[in-house]
Amino acid sequence: MMDVLLADSEILAFARTLHPGDELADCVARVAWSVIAEPGDAVAGSLIESLGAADALSLAVGDSSPLLPPGGASATATRALVDGRARWRPRADPRAVMAALRGAVAVRAQLVIPGDAAWPRGLTDLGPHAPSVLWVRGRVELLVREPRVSIVGARACSGYGEHVATELAGDLAAAGAVIVSGGAYGIDGAAHRAALGVQGATIAILAGGVDRAYPAGHQSLLRQIAERGALVSEPPCGTAPTKWRFLARNRLIAALGHATVVVEAGWRSGSLNTAGHAASLGRPLGAVPGAVTSASSAGCHRLLREYDAHCVTSAQEVRELYGAIHESVEEDGSGRDSSHSRVLDALGTRTRLSLDEVARRSGLSPDRVRAVLGLLHLEGDVARDDGGWHRQRPARASVSRAR
Amino acid sequence: MMDVLLADSEILAFARTLHPGDELADCVARVAWSVIAEPGDAVAGSLIESLGAADALSLAVGDSSPLLPPGGASATATRALVDGRARWRPRADPRAVMAALRGAVAVRAQLVIPGDAAWPRGLTDLGPHAPSVLWVRGRVELLVREPRVSIVGARACSGYGEHVATELAGDLAAAGAVIVSGGAYGIDGAAHRAALGVQGATIAILAGGVDRAYPAGHQSLLRQIAERGALVSEPPCGTAPTKWRFLARNRLIAALGHATVVVEAGWRSGSLNTAGHAASLGRPLGAVPGAVTSASSAGCHRLLREYDAHCVTSAQEVRELYGAIHESVEEDGSGRDSSHSRVLDALGTRTRLSLDEVARRSGLSPDRVRAVLGLLHLEGDVARDDGGWHRQRPARASVSRAR
Repeated sequence: MMDVLLADSEILAFARTLHPGDELADCVARVAWSVIAEPGDAVAGSLIESLGAADALSLAVGDSSPLLPPGGASATATRALVDGRARWRPRADPRAVMAALRGAVAVRAQLVIPGDAAWPRGLTDLGPHAPSVLWVRGRVELLVREPRVSIVGARACSGYGEHVATELAGDLAAAGAVIVSGGAYGIDGAAHRAALGVQGATIAILAGGVDRAYPAGHQSLLRQIAERGALVSEPPCGTAPTKWRFLARNRLIAALGHATVVVEAGWRSGSLNTAGHAASLGRPLGAVPGAVTSASSAGCHRLLREYDAHCVTSAQEVRELYGAIHESVEEDGSGRDSSHSRVLDALGTRTRLSLDEVARRSGLSPDRVRAVLGLLHLEGDVARDDGGWHRQRPARASVSRAR
Repeated sequence: MMDVLLADSEILAFARTLHPGDELADCVARVAWSVIAEPGDAVAGSLIESLGAADALSLAVGDSSPLLPPGGASATATRALVDGRARWRPRADPRAVMAALRGAVAVRAQLVIPGDAAWPRGLTDLGPHAPSVLWVRGRVELLVREPRVSIVGARACSGYGEHVATELAGDLAAAGAVIVSGGAYGIDGAAHRAALGVQGATIAILAGGVDRAYPAGHQSLLRQIAERGALVSEPPCGTAPTKWRFLARNRLIAALGHATVVVEAGWRSGSLNTAGHAASLGRPLGAVPGAVTSASSAGCHRLLREYDAHCVTSAQEVRELYGAIHESVEEDGSGRDSSHSRVLDALGTRTRLSLDEVARRSGLSPDRVRAVLGLLHLEGDVARDDGGWHRQRPARASVSRAR
């Protein structure tokens, strides 16, 4: 199949348009993989990883290729490869590759592949489940801008959830974070809109092709994201979203964010799937609490109870989640820089914290925290005993008050 | 002073009425300590612990007693004793002891001292801060009935908080738990009322004497608790509640409960003080989440974030907190006993749990959990892999659904 693809001048021309550069064969092979394999196909991912996309393609769907990879394979691997060929071959049509490329060019999408400057390093955490390509409409550079926060939640959210998503995403985006979400109704939409509303950056990762506005009611929102943010998908243009692709898409939302926050989710919400991916990828996971009487918060409470998610109630607490990826020293009204407030916010009067823990909570580097604690200590705002650092009682209202 | 007290036939008669039994000298000495020392006085507690209440009293306020305890003491201990004598002596008046006894008899209070069957063992966890006596109006046996759950929260609670406190306390009390709280307006009052409303048991621990209805607006509620539950206080009758006594009282609420749950609390709520005591006593601590937009829930979210409190959203989750103190095997409609539901509720499809963890979450004993898991495994509802036990996907709605 590689021969056919590389002999087609139109395919090559499209590929050059979508991905200028030297890696033409790799690029075309990856596009072919994007067409023939479903998102998250670990057999495809392993093959590409071990042989390179082009050789993997020849092995997988080449007419004359041997059944086994060079060097042999275990019975399990052989079986997986046989199964893989059975599902890839029916799709191994150069015309489908052509259609994907043509569709992408038509909507001015760009192709991002591993090795590109715009390829997010975090995707490698997905191992063999990493995508072979990303199709992007809009600002590809946002894929690697830091920090990125994934904010997700129920489609059928409450007014409360929508309000909180708007507040969090607006605050974080205004401070420079890229808001990643899934373009869905409800929490996702509120997060994207809030980011756009403060002239911030946002990425919508879709389950279908980037040429498909799904859900239909978000046509205008998705167009705005394509213009001012980035629309991203793993399957090629022309692909419809399916249940499986929503699930597979969720892993990309989790992998792309430096932290994932679930704002509102029912007990069985798909957002818990995204949260599960974030947790298994080692990404910090936050959940916004809500009334225990609200079914829309049941999933968030479940995350707090069963997934050890962090309880987040403010944008500052989300920043603590992803830590000191981007530290800035901003002056606040008092003449102190914002690090002082962040360190004070991280401390309590009762709890004793190590310097590292203060760094984690405040989202500042340990060096910066050491310097700030030194100043605050001089000013009598904080103290240290055997247990660690804590606030002095007068600085913050004591928790030890009579009821 | 002991000589004077034990020579007073009226004092002895009152003491015998309040605490029938052999330990008359110890009993009278403890009453005297209750009069002369403020709640939680650790110097008094240490003296009583090492010398016994009577000898400690002689040493502390006896006219002819030596300055130092027998065997000598460190400079710090000597200093503490000198300071203690300075604050105890002005109160060392036999008439005050008489007044405390007379006041208790007048309201038909009972005196409970260490060694009594009704003395809650958990109070020993307070070490030298343990009370010397407890004054009780009502059913003293409730002090040692199990399980006991402390439910506390803000006085200025919201309708949401009041609703949740009522639901939790009513459910738990109906199932046999003793609801412990502080008799205050707001969450405390809702918890007591809910327990009484289901003919359940409740204990109000007051900051002043048990003859004082405080707050005044709870006069009728406190009277009901004295009749059908138990009113408890550490300071003697006639004592007014003070800020210090509220704080000291909070440690008793925490120590008496097998778990403490904060339903609603502002950022600086005194309930956080109770929660802090519970945490430092090693008692399981739960916090009920609420809307992040509600100031009345800010303290609860703080507990979730800073104190590692457990997020609790239902009575069942409170039961998981204090575990298998009272297990009962009740049939539910399906013919399975309730242990099956409790084990299933404890499991998730993604999370893997050890048997001990399932026991902790379900509030059942490990042996019972082992038996139930075996049955559920046979029925295909649960499975185990290297990571531990989990639900089979079909049994509970999967979390891996498309959004």
